Amino acid sequence: MPIQKKKTTPSARSERQNRAAGKPTGEKRVPRKKGARGTARTKKAVLGKLKIIPLGGIGEVGKNMTVLEYEDDLIIVDAGLGFPEEDMLGIDSVIPDVSYLVEKKDKIRGLLLTHGHEDHIGAIPYLLRSINPPIYGTPLTLGIIRNKLQEFELPVKPDLREVKAGDVVKCGVFETEFIHVNHSIADACCLAIRTPLGTCLHTGDFKLDVSPIEGEVMNLTRLGEIGNEGVLLLMCESTNAERPGFTPSERRVGESLEYVFNTHASKRIVIATFSSNVHRVQQIINISARHGRKVAITGRSMVNIVDAAVELGYMHVPAGVLVNVNEIRRYRPSELTLVTTGSQGEPMSALYRMAFNNHSQITLNAMDVVVLSSSAIPGNEKLIGKIVNELSYNHIEVINDNSVPVHVSGHACQEELKLMQALTKPRYFMPIHGEFRHLAANAGLARYMGIPDERIFIPEIGKVLQLTQDGASFAGRVTAGNVLVDGYGVGDVGSVVLRDRKHLSEDGLIVVVATVDAYSRTVVSGPDIISRGFVYVKESENLMDEVRHFVADLLEDCLQGNAEDRVEIKNRIRDELGRYLNSRLNRKPMILPVITNV
Amino acid sequence: MPIQKKKTTPSARSERQNRAAGKPTGEKRVPRKKGARGTARTKKAVLGKLKIIPLGGIGEVGKNMTVLEYEDDLIIVDAGLGFPEEDMLGIDSVIPDVSYLVEKKDKIRGLLLTHGHEDHIGAIPYLLRSINPPIYGTPLTLGIIRNKLQEFELPVKPDLREVKAGDVVKCGVFETEFIHVNHSIADACCLAIRTPLGTCLHTGDFKLDVSPIEGEVMNLTRLGEIGNEGVLLLMCESTNAERPGFTPSERRVGESLEYVFNTHASKRIVIATFSSNVHRVQQIINISARHGRKVAITGRSMVNIVDAAVELGYMHVPAGVLVNVNEIRRYRPSELTLVTTGSQGEPMSALYRMAFNNHSQITLNAMDVVVLSSSAIPGNEKLIGKIVNELSYNHIEVINDNSVPVHVSGHACQEELKLMQALTKPRYFMPIHGEFRHLAANAGLARYMGIPDERIFIPEIGKVLQLTQDGASFAGRVTAGNVLVDGYGVGDVGSVVLRDRKHLSEDGLIVVVATVDAYSRTVVSGPDIISRGFVYVKESENLMDEVRHFVADLLEDCLQGNAEDRVEIKNRIRDELGRYLNSRLNRKPMILPVITNV
Repeated sequence: MPIQKKKTTPSARSERQNRAAGKPTGEKRVPRKKGARGTARTKKAVLGKLKIIPLGGIGEVGKNMTVLEYEDDLIIVDAGLGFPEEDMLGIDSVIPDVSYLVEKKDKIRGLLLTHGHEDHIGAIPYLLRSINPPIYGTPLTLGIIRNKLQEFELPVKPDLREVKAGDVVKCGVFETEFIHVNHSIADACCLAIRTPLGTCLHTGDFKLDVSPIEGEVMNLTRLGEIGNEGVLLLMCESTNAERPGFTPSERRVGESLEYVFNTHASKRIVIATFSSNVHRVQQIINISARHGRKVAITGRSMVNIVDAAVELGYMHVPAGVLVNVNEIRRYRPSELTLVTTGSQGEPMSALYRMAFNNHSQITLNAMDVVVLSSSAIPGNEKLIGKIVNELSYNHIEVINDNSVPVHVSGHACQEELKLMQALTKPRYFMPIHGEFRHLAANAGLARYMGIPDERIFIPEIGKVLQLTQDGASFAGRVTAGNVLVDGYGVGDVGSVVLRDRKHLSEDGLIVVVATVDAYSRTVVSGPDIISRGFVYVKESENLMDEVRHFVADLLEDCLQGNAEDRVEIKNRIRDELGRYLNSRLNRKPMILPVITNV
Repeated sequence: MPIQKKKTTPSARSERQNRAAGKPTGEKRVPRKKGARGTARTKKAVLGKLKIIPLGGIGEVGKNMTVLEYEDDLIIVDAGLGFPEEDMLGIDSVIPDVSYLVEKKDKIRGLLLTHGHEDHIGAIPYLLRSINPPIYGTPLTLGIIRNKLQEFELPVKPDLREVKAGDVVKCGVFETEFIHVNHSIADACCLAIRTPLGTCLHTGDFKLDVSPIEGEVMNLTRLGEIGNEGVLLLMCESTNAERPGFTPSERRVGESLEYVFNTHASKRIVIATFSSNVHRVQQIINISARHGRKVAITGRSMVNIVDAAVELGYMHVPAGVLVNVNEIRRYRPSELTLVTTGSQGEPMSALYRMAFNNHSQITLNAMDVVVLSSSAIPGNEKLIGKIVNELSYNHIEVINDNSVPVHVSGHACQEELKLMQALTKPRYFMPIHGEFRHLAANAGLARYMGIPDERIFIPEIGKVLQLTQDGASFAGRVTAGNVLVDGYGVGDVGSVVLRDRKHLSEDGLIVVVATVDAYSRTVVSGPDIISRGFVYVKESENLMDEVRHFVADLLEDCLQGNAEDRVEIKNRIRDELGRYLNSRLNRKPMILPVITNV
C-alpha cells in the first residue's frame, strides 16, 4: 500500500535495490560502464544473461519445476508431478515437458530439490529416462526418492547427493545455499542461488512455524542476512496467497487431537492424514502414548514413510507403542489408535476400504471415531464426502476440520509471505507454485510491500524471464507443457486421444458393420449395429431396429450410385446417422462405420 | 445434551409428546382401548397407518421428494431434480424413480411445493408424463414452473393451483397449511400437514432471517402455535447441519456489496449470483441505483427470473436503472453494474463466456471487477476455479466469499435447526435433504435437544416410515432410486451403459476387424485395427503394428482348429489381446472384435 511504500527512505531503497540487482554496492561490484573493459575493476561489468524458465507449477497446483540458465550452465529446481485435470480422462499423472532440458543436456549441472513431496520430486523417475544430472537433496527427501525409484526400471543409476540445511553446493556458475524452512514435511529447504548477476531466492514450499514439533524454526536470520546482502529475484510460492493472517503452528493440531482423545476416551480413534507429514504422525504417536494407547499404522505409503522417517531419525517412537495391524484384535477400542492413509478419499486407500467394509484387517463400527486430519485438495471434495457419508450412514462419528481444527496448512499465508519479502527485500518478484488466482494474489502482496508493478513478473510455463545488468524482462518462450502418463505410456496420449475419450464417455459408441459387394453394388451382410455406452440395448430394441433400418436404407441409397466409394459411404453413415440420433435423442454417440468390401 | 433433557419436566414433556403422537390430550383425542369400538368416544381410536416415504433428497443434495400416504390418500411434497454424480458420465440430470407413484396413481391427491428451486420442482415436467395431480405452490414457485414447462412437450395440461402463505389446502384426508419461511428464493414455505394421526411438519428449505430484504421474517409464531397444538413428526432439512451458529441475514451481503461498490467506484462491477435469488438481485439493483449505476442483466435464466419476479411484484426496480446489455457501450465502467449467471462455473453460462472472451456483447478487462456472490455447490469447485484463474490471468480482479463476505447461505445452521425443534416440539424427528453426513449431524442436534434415539429416524430413499397409534418404525421398502436423464432419453441409461462409458473414458477402444472364410479356415481380409481414445496412432505406428501382428497370429491359431466358432474367436481376441495390452502398457481399452464370415 502507498503508506508502506513511502516509509522506505529513497536512499535506503535504492541502495538495496542496486545491491540486489547486481548493481554496484561497496567493493564487491563495480560501476558498469558501457564499452569499458580491460581493467580489473571493470571486468565484472560485462555479464551474461540469466534466464529463469518455469517448466511447471505455474497456473496449476503441482508439477513444480524451474530452470535457471546462465550461459553454459543450467540448473533445475524440483521435478514434480501433477494430478490430472478433470478433462484428462484415464490419465494417471502429468509431468512437465522437458524437451528443453533434453536439448540443453550438456549444460545441466544439477537438479536441486527443496523437499520430498510428490509435486516436487514425482517426475524424477521419468526425467531419468532422458537426463541424469546430480540430484541434491536433504536426507529425508532423498530417502523418499530412493523408495520411489524402486518401483521403476531405470536406464541409469541416479546420482543422489545428500545435503543438509546450511550447505552450499556449486553447480557450474551457480552456488546454492540450502536454508531450513518449515513445511508439512520434514527437512524442507528454500534455496539461495548465487549467480553472476545476483542472488535468486527460490522459496520452495514453506510456512513459518515458531513452535515446530521437531527441528528448528525456519531460518529467518539467514534469510535476513541474505536479504541484507541483496536479493535480485525472489521466486515465492503462492499456494495460500489468498488467505489472510498466519498459518497456525503444527502444534495447534496436537491441541485439537488432545481434545479429541479426551472426549473419546472409550472409542478407538482412527486418524487419516497425509503420509508424508511425519510431524503429524509423531504427534499422534506422542498423544496416543500419553493416553496409554497403542498405535497401528495402515496404508502402504504410510507404513513406508514412517519406516523411513524412524530410520533416518525424523521420528521417535517410544518403545512398545507401535503394534502391527494384525495384532489389533488384542486391544480394546480405548487402547488403540489407527493411523491411516486415505485422507483425500482415494478409492484404493486404507480408509476408503475401511469405510466401505472392504479392509481385510479392520472393520469399523460405532465404537470408532474417524478423524480426518487433512484438508481437501481442490477437486477431491466429492471423494472425501463419499467416505464421510458412508461412515455417517453406518453411525460412525467423523471429526474433520469443520468441527475441530485437526489440520493446519503447510503453506505460508499472507502475513508469512509478506514476511518473506520483508526479510529478503528482492529487486524483482516472481510468484510461483499456484493457479493464476494464487499468483495474482501473491503479486498483490508484493505491490502492497512496495515493489512496483514493473518489477513484478507473473510467469507462465515455458516463458523466459531474462535478467541482465540492465534489468529484467520476458524474452520468448521455450517448448514446455504437459506430458500425460497413462499406465506405462508416457506422452502417447494427447489432445486427440483425450477428445475421443471425452466423446466416448458422454454418449458412448455405435459401430455399424456391413459387408458390401462393390461390383454388384449389393449389401452382402449386415448392417449390424453394435453399441456400447449408448443405450441399454435390452430395453431399447425398437430404437436399435430403427437405427438398423435407417442404416440399411442409407446403404441402399449409397450403393444405388449415390456414393463414390467406401470412404464416402462411411462419411455418409457418420453424418446422417449422427444427425438422426441427435434429433431423435439429443445425443451424439461416436459412430464408427466398418464397411468391408468383397 | 443431558442438561437440556433434564430441564423438561417429565409431565410437560409427556403431555406434549402424547399430543403430538395423536395420543389422547384433552377433548380432541380419546384414550385408545384395545378392542373398544362402537361408541362415539372411541371411534377415533381405530386409526390407520401413516406412511412417510422419501423418494429423493436423502443421502444426496437435490432431487427432493417425499410421499405421505394414509389409507386411500397420498400426497407428494416437492418433485426436484438432482445433478449427476461424477461417475454418471454423459448424464444431464437425475430424477426420482416414481414407479411407486405410478402404481398408486388413483390415490394421489396433490403435489405440494415448498419453493421454486430446481431441486424441488425440476422433476415436474418428467412427472407429468405419468401422473397429473393438482400442483399447489406460491405465486413465484408456479411462475417459475410455468416458465420451465414451456421448454417441454407435455401430454397433459398441468393443474397448477396457487396458494399463499397462511392458506390451508385439503388433499383427501390431508390438510396442509403453508407457512412462510426465509430462504434464498422468495415465497418459500414450510408445510404443516394435518393427518388423522397428528401433524407432520415438513420444513422444506429454510433459514431464519430477522431482517429480510423484502417480505416477512419466517413465521415463528405460527410454528410455535402448531408446536403447542402438537407435532407428531418433524421432517427437517439438514443442508447446514454441520455448521455452528446462525446463518447471517441476506442484508449482510448488501453491506459487503456496499463496501465493494465504495472501494471500486471507478470500475465496472460484474456480479455473478444464483438467478433464483431475487432478493440478492434486488439488493444489487438498489445499491447500484444509490451509486448512480445502471444495471444490465445477462444470462438467460437470470433474465427470465428477473422478468417473472418484477411481473409478480417480488422485485421492485426503480425507473431507468435497468438497461439492455446491447446498450452498455454507452456507459463508462463507473456507471455500470452487470448481473450475470455462471456463479457455479457452468461452461455455457454468461460469466464463463465473458471470462474466456467468448461473450458476444461483453468484453472484460482490467477496468472490471468480478464479484462471485455465491458459494460453490460441492463438486463445482474446479469449474469455478477455472473461471477465477482465467480472470486472474487476464489481470481482472475477482472478489469472492474468501475475501469479502459477498454471499450468505439460504439454509439454517445449527442454532436455527435447534430453534425449529424448540418451536415445534416434535414427538418424532426425521432429518431430510442432505447427504448422510448432514442427516447424521441433524440427528445429533435432535439428540442434543432431548429427543431420544428411538424417536429419531434417519431415512433412506424408498424406506417406509410407518406411524400408527402405537408408535413409529421403519416398515419395508418401495421401489425407488435414480432415473437418469440423458438428452431426450429418460431412464434408458443405466448401470451397464455407465460402466461402458467409464471403461471407454479411461482407456478408449480398439475395434478388431477381420473377415474369415469358415470353410477354408483362412483370413480373407484384415485384421484391421481401429482405435479411438487409446493412443495417438500417428506417433504409435510400431505399437499398432505389434497389435495387428498379435491379432493376426491369434486368428491364425484360431483357424488352425483352436477355436470352435466365431464367438470363441471373439472371446479369445478380447481376452488375449486384453492381457497383452495390459502387460505391455498397463492399460485396459475396451476391445470390440468384429469378425465377418464369408
